[in-house]
Amino acid sequence: MRGFETSEFQARVERAQSRMVQAELSALLLTTEPEVRYFSGYLTRFWESPTRPWFLIVPVTGKPIAVIPSIGAALMAQTWVQDIRTWSAPDLTDDGVSLLVDTLTEICPADAVIGLPDGHETHVRMPLGDFHRLQRGLGTRRLGSDQGIVRALRMVKSPAEITKIETACAIAGRAFQRVPEIAGEGVALDEVFRRFQMLCLDEGADWVPYLAGGAEQGGYTDVISPARATGLRLGDVLMLDTGLVWDGYFCDFDRNWSVGQATRQVRDAYATLIEASDAAFEAARPGATAADLFNVMNAILSRNSGDTGAGRLGHGLGMSLTEWPSLIPSDHTVLEPSMVLTLEPGIAVGDKILVHEENIVISDGAPRYISPRAGSELPQI
Amino acid sequence: MRGFETSEFQARVERAQSRMVQAELSALLLTTEPEVRYFSGYLTRFWESPTRPWFLIVPVTGKPIAVIPSIGAALMAQTWVQDIRTWSAPDLTDDGVSLLVDTLTEICPADAVIGLPDGHETHVRMPLGDFHRLQRGLGTRRLGSDQGIVRALRMVKSPAEITKIETACAIAGRAFQRVPEIAGEGVALDEVFRRFQMLCLDEGADWVPYLAGGAEQGGYTDVISPARATGLRLGDVLMLDTGLVWDGYFCDFDRNWSVGQATRQVRDAYATLIEASDAAFEAARPGATAADLFNVMNAILSRNSGDTGAGRLGHGLGMSLTEWPSLIPSDHTVLEPSMVLTLEPGIAVGDKILVHEENIVISDGAPRYISPRAGSELPQI
Repeated sequence: MRGFETSEFQARVERAQSRMVQAELSALLLTTEPEVRYFSGYLTRFWESPTRPWFLIVPVTGKPIAVIPSIGAALMAQTWVQDIRTWSAPDLTDDGVSLLVDTLTEICPADAVIGLPDGHETHVRMPLGDFHRLQRGLGTRRLGSDQGIVRALRMVKSPAEITKIETACAIAGRAFQRVPEIAGEGVALDEVFRRFQMLCLDEGADWVPYLAGGAEQGGYTDVISPARATGLRLGDVLMLDTGLVWDGYFCDFDRNWSVGQATRQVRDAYATLIEASDAAFEAARPGATAADLFNVMNAILSRNSGDTGAGRLGHGLGMSLTEWPSLIPSDHTVLEPSMVLTLEPGIAVGDKILVHEENIVISDGAPRYISPRAGSELPQI
Repeated sequence: MRGFETSEFQARVERAQSRMVQAELSALLLTTEPEVRYFSGYLTRFWESPTRPWFLIVPVTGKPIAVIPSIGAALMAQTWVQDIRTWSAPDLTDDGVSLLVDTLTEICPADAVIGLPDGHETHVRMPLGDFHRLQRGLGTRRLGSDQGIVRALRMVKSPAEITKIETACAIAGRAFQRVPEIAGEGVALDEVFRRFQMLCLDEGADWVPYLAGGAEQGGYTDVISPARATGLRLGDVLMLDTGLVWDGYFCDFDRNWSVGQATRQVRDAYATLIEASDAAFEAARPGATAADLFNVMNAILSRNSGDTGAGRLGHGLGMSLTEWPSLIPSDHTVLEPSMVLTLEPGIAVGDKILVHEENIVISDGAPRYISPRAGSELPQI
């Protein structure tokens, strides 16, 4: 099923509001795509255009209020949000700021603190000049931190959210299985990238916002470069890492293939990656921390020397390609059932790297793979 | 050719620096994907991940300095930027802020003003909490406005940039020609969306960040909704509007088709759209303003009644799907050769709308279509 029952949004808002009471916030002010969508269900690819700001207010009581450009009114009216206030954007003299000030002034008392997501992984999606105008316009009402409320809510997924992520994972899994149809010795990497995105769409993806990868002799130099036009060669390790979307939710995992026979060093390194993600899977139980998963993987990976530069060994996943928490030594987030994580060990092999990634759901007891778990033998094309 | 000669980036930086002298700015601080890429050439889809902030500093003299997560070091080293300072991100206690403070303190005098893009279509892509830490860390050095410098530069394209946009347009043009292969009575709109993105990739797109459209009886309700699973019916008008990317540059135009025979009202409305974009094309000469193009189109469109809610009738185009200027009555940006614009007239037809869009380059004298100009007859599938 696409979309969500209204009860899903009601529950999200109620959970936010109970935390807002604790935090003494009169409202949340949300400006980015996932934040607005989380509480409203407003799903569109139109955010690709940087022109217009969009605002959703979650008051401490009552339903969210949308303060948005008129071009979005018809679509927002299809969500559960009823109070929709629009202006004709872009407006070069007042691009929604006074409408936003008026709305916040109407619903918040004079000593209100209005919370914005302000921590890691967030930004305020409105012009800095308008943000300052908003602050001035609010007078005694103050813009402050949301104290991590939105992050905390989004980190633990509902059953309906998990189903959407699983659907995205299943689509990617089928596309990865078909890679031998499109990749092999002599095929240019940029052609593999294009054809792989077509496979993702053919298997049911709504769109493919993210594809990265690499293919060099015995590994790759990094995992974020655009694909080159050079052909795959025997001895290359091809890696494709995709974040495709189904109904607004991402998968994020990769697969590796050796073009022809891999060296023993490469095969051993790959097996070490799988050993690391298997070990993290075993450790990924309620009560363990994000740091624990890092440490479990790092203990195995550090048998090999060398830093991949990635900065972490996995992360949360959901409405965004990457979400809280981070699998790093300093992230002591305690795992809870219904968190969705990626396990993403990386390893240096000579002057190259190899990276493997799986997606899992934390459950009571053992977790559950939602990407099709890879075996310890590097597949060959 | 992919990428740019180094001279392209040198010229961009020199133009920025000469304006920075006038504006008494010691440096520009850039945080978003197109801003960082414009001065560095740093091209990656990794920005899809919201986790890590990225910073590029353009000092008033000398080359740009990158202050970035270590995961991007290898790719940034392939650009013309030589001074690359990295930290291991995410860092929960100091996510690049002190490294950024140290770098700005090193290169800017104590009374410096550091310019950030702060006007329409911009935002600061870093956590608000970190932005406040940055301000405090800079002490007497002040974060101010870039006074529109980045916008002004990006608005006028180089020949190499225009070639990339033209390449994207040509790819989309070929994909649009093939729509009769994938769309027709009974085919679900979401299937058309998936298949059309595959056509774009098949014709050479690197990726397809944006696809919108609609298909209802005699028009569509809006142009930003996700595609429904309902099948096309006789009498529907199908519209597809894509922003696909080639080598980091967008096209942005649409095409309409009638499923079976269209009514006279729909055909007349469509012909009016083409008349409007043709008239704007004729008016789009150096010295005319963005507002002039709006007025030319609006005079024709307002023979029909009704507002489409779009808020404008076209915009700039380049590294982003939508850029400055906006074709609205209040945007008095004077057109110059080498600006790339979309002409995007919309019209109400009963309770539905129709939208048409072309892409053009402003030249000395008459402009030039870079999308394959549509005729005044609504094509039928």
